[in-house]
Amino acid sequence: MNDIKICVLGGDMRQLSAVRTMCKKGFDVSVFGIDKTIHEARNCTTLNEAVSNASLILLPLPFSADGIRIFCPLSNTDIKLDELISSLSDSQIVAGGKLSHVFCKRLTDRGCKIYDYYTSERLSILNAIPTAEGAVAIAMNELKITVFGSKCAVVGYGRIGRILSKMLKSLGSDVTVFARSESALTWAEAEGFTAINISKMQNFVSDKHVIFNTVPSMVINNDILQKTNENVVIIDLASAPGGVDFESAKKTNRKVIFALSLPGKVAPDSAGKIIADTVISRLLEVDL
Amino acid sequence: MNDIKICVLGGDMRQLSAVRTMCKKGFDVSVFGIDKTIHEARNCTTLNEAVSNASLILLPLPFSADGIRIFCPLSNTDIKLDELISSLSDSQIVAGGKLSHVFCKRLTDRGCKIYDYYTSERLSILNAIPTAEGAVAIAMNELKITVFGSKCAVVGYGRIGRILSKMLKSLGSDVTVFARSESALTWAEAEGFTAINISKMQNFVSDKHVIFNTVPSMVINNDILQKTNENVVIIDLASAPGGVDFESAKKTNRKVIFALSLPGKVAPDSAGKIIADTVISRLLEVDL
Amino acid sequence: MNDIKICVLGGDMRQLSAVRTMCKKGFDVSVFGIDKTIHEARNCTTLNEAVSNASLILLPLPFSADGIRIFCPLSNTDIKLDELISSLSDSQIVAGGKLSHVFCKRLTDRGCKIYDYYTSERLSILNAIPTAEGAVAIAMNELKITVFGSKCAVVGYGRIGRILSKMLKSLGSDVTVFARSESALTWAEAEGFTAINISKMQNFVSDKHVIFNTVPSMVINNDILQKTNENVVIIDLASAPGGVDFESAKKTNRKVIFALSLPGKVAPDSAGKIIADTVISRLLEVDL
Amino acid sequence: MNDIKICVLGGDMRQLSAVRTMCKKGFDVSVFGIDKTIHEARNCTTLNEAVSNASLILLPLPFSADGIRIFCPLSNTDIKLDELISSLSDSQIVAGGKLSHVFCKRLTDRGCKIYDYYTSERLSILNAIPTAEGAVAIAMNELKITVFGSKCAVVGYGRIGRILSKMLKSLGSDVTVFARSESALTWAEAEGFTAINISKMQNFVSDKHVIFNTVPSMVINNDILQKTNENVVIIDLASAPGGVDFESAKKTNRKVIFALSLPGKVAPDSAGKIIADTVISRLLEVDL
Repeated sequence: MNDIKICVLGGDMRQLSAVRTMCKKGFDVSVFGIDKTIHEARNCTTLNEAVSNASLILLPLPFSADGIRIFCPLSNTDIKLDELISSLSDSQIVAGGKLSHVFCKRLTDRGCKIYDYYTSERLSILNAIPTAEGAVAIAMNELKITVFGSKCAVVGYGRIGRILSKMLKSLGSDVTVFARSESALTWAEAEGFTAINISKMQNFVSDKHVIFNTVPSMVINNDILQKTNENVVIIDLASAPGGVDFESAKKTNRKVIFALSLPGKVAPDSAGKIIADTVISRLLEVDL
Repeated sequence: MNDIKICVLGGDMRQLSAVRTMCKKGFDVSVFGIDKTIHEARNCTTLNEAVSNASLILLPLPFSADGIRIFCPLSNTDIKLDELISSLSDSQIVAGGKLSHVFCKRLTDRGCKIYDYYTSERLSILNAIPTAEGAVAIAMNELKITVFGSKCAVVGYGRIGRILSKMLKSLGSDVTVFARSESALTWAEAEGFTAINISKMQNFVSDKHVIFNTVPSMVINNDILQKTNENVVIIDLASAPGGVDFESAKKTNRKVIFALSLPGKVAPDSAGKIIADTVISRLLEVDL
Repeated sequence: MNDIKICVLGGDMRQLSAVRTMCKKGFDVSVFGIDKTIHEARNCTTLNEAVSNASLILLPLPFSADGIRIFCPLSNTDIKLDELISSLSDSQIVAGGKLSHVFCKRLTDRGCKIYDYYTSERLSILNAIPTAEGAVAIAMNELKITVFGSKCAVVGYGRIGRILSKMLKSLGSDVTVFARSESALTWAEAEGFTAINISKMQNFVSDKHVIFNTVPSMVINNDILQKTNENVVIIDLASAPGGVDFESAKKTNRKVIFALSLPGKVAPDSAGKIIADTVISRLLEVDL
Repeated sequence: MNDIKICVLGGDMRQLSAVRTMCKKGFDVSVFGIDKTIHEARNCTTLNEAVSNASLILLPLPFSADGIRIFCPLSNTDIKLDELISSLSDSQIVAGGKLSHVFCKRLTDRGCKIYDYYTSERLSILNAIPTAEGAVAIAMNELKITVFGSKCAVVGYGRIGRILSKMLKSLGSDVTVFARSESALTWAEAEGFTAINISKMQNFVSDKHVIFNTVPSMVINNDILQKTNENVVIIDLASAPGGVDFESAKKTNRKVIFALSLPGKVAPDSAGKIIADTVISRLLEVDL
């Protein structure tokens, strides 16, 4: 065990997995706000016991659901943000997911360093893996045909689009990537996909069995929907409000599945490990 | 449309898909025992209407659930095997799945040619695809981690083992294949897997997150189960009675999922198309 | 045929392939400075004939070897840059590779638009494919073992690094990617490679059969070379002066292969097609 | 070191690699007929010294080029088969490649066990890897385009066909497999290739950039050659007399490359390791 102490507060299954990952790496981990004994960690009975002497305080993703208490779905205890701030000392680092401006300001006023791991590029890239796998599993469950031999469209070629396209192709699907920038289109082409400018999408959707959207703006609009096959499955992976015109989809009777926050749902242990690794590599180690 | 007439009787979603496939290929298809109007086909109101003049009678998989009537889950009509036999003439070919000896004898006595497509190697190979996809989807749904980065064991390197191993690897899993014959082990090695003799399996299971069994004999016995990780997910794809010692699994508290007949469940349209293609290529075309 | 006229001057096998690609796409192509009759194109006998009325003048890569004449390795004719400039009119676009500042200034003074396709991101990405294939072929030719089962290091995870790593992995090699930025390292990890910070490279090279360098700075220095296996093959793909300490490599008796300008050498037809596609998509079409 | 003694006689670079592999696995290896000091082994000065007390005598591939002497291209010494037979005792096992009937009979008369590793299925499967890599390297060297994006035909779907097709596809080629049996065709289809009956080949070759033949009978005949593209590269991997009508190819001016015995040429170290592994796993170990 190394002598760096980490305090983990609240959270769901991901946070549990983050605790285990950190213990395995040799950190001294204290836990509060998870009503489950974790053998490798020190399970604390008070907030102060957990926080004191910790170099790093790890808050969950999201850090809070109501702006008042830490998000603690696995505990009956309430941990107020006020209490937490009172218990902190100025050399401590606070890491959390989707930290609010108000909360950040109060922490920096207190003298703490803050780190919102949800903004990390590393986390975003690695989270694209469980997101893509979750999307593939949804497609497998929803389609009446195999992914092998199916025709898929992937809209957007960012992190998720790129990893998802590769997975689908390796499963034997015929994948068309729709993107906007020359760079994205060229990469998609160089990686073996049919790459088509998103502006021409409506001419190339009629034969698709599944359309995965990763673009967070209204791209699967009424015009596109009109051109899709009546049996198409549309899986929207873009964050709210999503990229599918839901009203038109309902009118045209197209099946749309809104799939948000997949990492925590389909692979909480991987998602938690990703959080732990991201935080450790950024805050406690010099390089990867 | 070509002038070959095919009569399709009973069956589930796969049979519906077989009808559509055959219509698309230009055959004249008559249907009875499916209470759903299929626009491309002739929907008949009597057995005789459907059967008369057909070169080929396509029965479902399985052809019958009780040995008395054709398997007709999508219809309120009963079609007795006796009736069918009476309505056949001796130039007709009857194709079906899992045909019984008794039924076969009656058909040949009647002068019909018979073909059990379920015994076809082509169907077995192609069915391995939906089976493997179904197994992957189960793993994705059951595991708390991503398949990417997981350690999988595939027991058996026949049709399903081979296709499943490849899928898992292409999704980023670290795959170990357990097999018995030198040929199977060498192929697994040549296709990039860690290949280990099944007799040594117990030394190599403790770190596996998932174990897929494809061998229809008791290979995942108590000795092996004792060596597995407590969080392992075991997916048994072998036909009844399967290859996992269920009692021991219960005692050791290991999660076992018995996944039978996946093609019809996870991809009925593909499974039906496979049946249609197999029958057509064998009975109505010279070669593939 | 569309009514856009393109004039192609000089160049090597790539330029020939560019001509063919442009003819296939329906352009009216005139050629001068290639002593080979190209049936689909108009083979001109004077510079003026070729240039007049052309919307686009395509110069080779590089546009000139001596700053005086157009690079014309497939012709006995000399085409002076001076002559070309005199023959141009101000509505014409001149595209070429590695255009010099002096030449660009003279063209813009003349009123022409210029485009150096060698600076295009699209061309750089697509050229990474023949470069990576050329590197793989060199490795296959030089190694006494198969790429399958070998241990490779790829230094740098830019365009070439990314495409090369994927090729090697798909051939069954165990690939370690060395990179510097968190983003590059995370992508390499997410795409299934062992990803290690370049600063720690010396601890991870001793077991490598091949090292591919794509970084244009001295990364394979004496310290690294000392740690490599005596039978290692080092393939330097970085542009001059390269990234390998050649003196140290000689002293330590390590085999180093400097592999520059692979696209034109290993796949001139693909390289020419890439040039033609890049120029057309940028200058003559609205989008890809 | 274990206490099993192996005697290695003659051979080329593969035999050298076999020596190294066997030393690494802990066998006591004596060598004669290779004029190169191998540090890990006992380099003997007489045949008797090498042979005496050895459990296994490893002869090269081929065991002899003239039926009189052991094949010894790396030595000035002559080792007569007569001498070898005289020096053997009856408990010894003799393993070699392409053993002749006459030689086998003399060995069994002498009381020795014999094993021709060249007939082993394991060796045949594993040798398909260097053969396929060698074929890919030839294609890369000969084609003016990249394998990525090219259209390839692979004729035959046995060991080499199967491994080669997979390599080509993973490099981004569009692969069509031509085979005869329903089983081979279905496997090719299930593994994601376009699969076409070899009897229809002539209708599907005109757009192919490369044709790889693996079938040891005249399949690329005059009719087929007439239908190929004039720039096609034909790579014949079938053992003599091969599967290409060489006279017709000359008349139609098609480029044909006869590529025989690739493993020893392109990857002698892998080929030697395969021989050593095959012999050890068969003769000296219970299972793989």
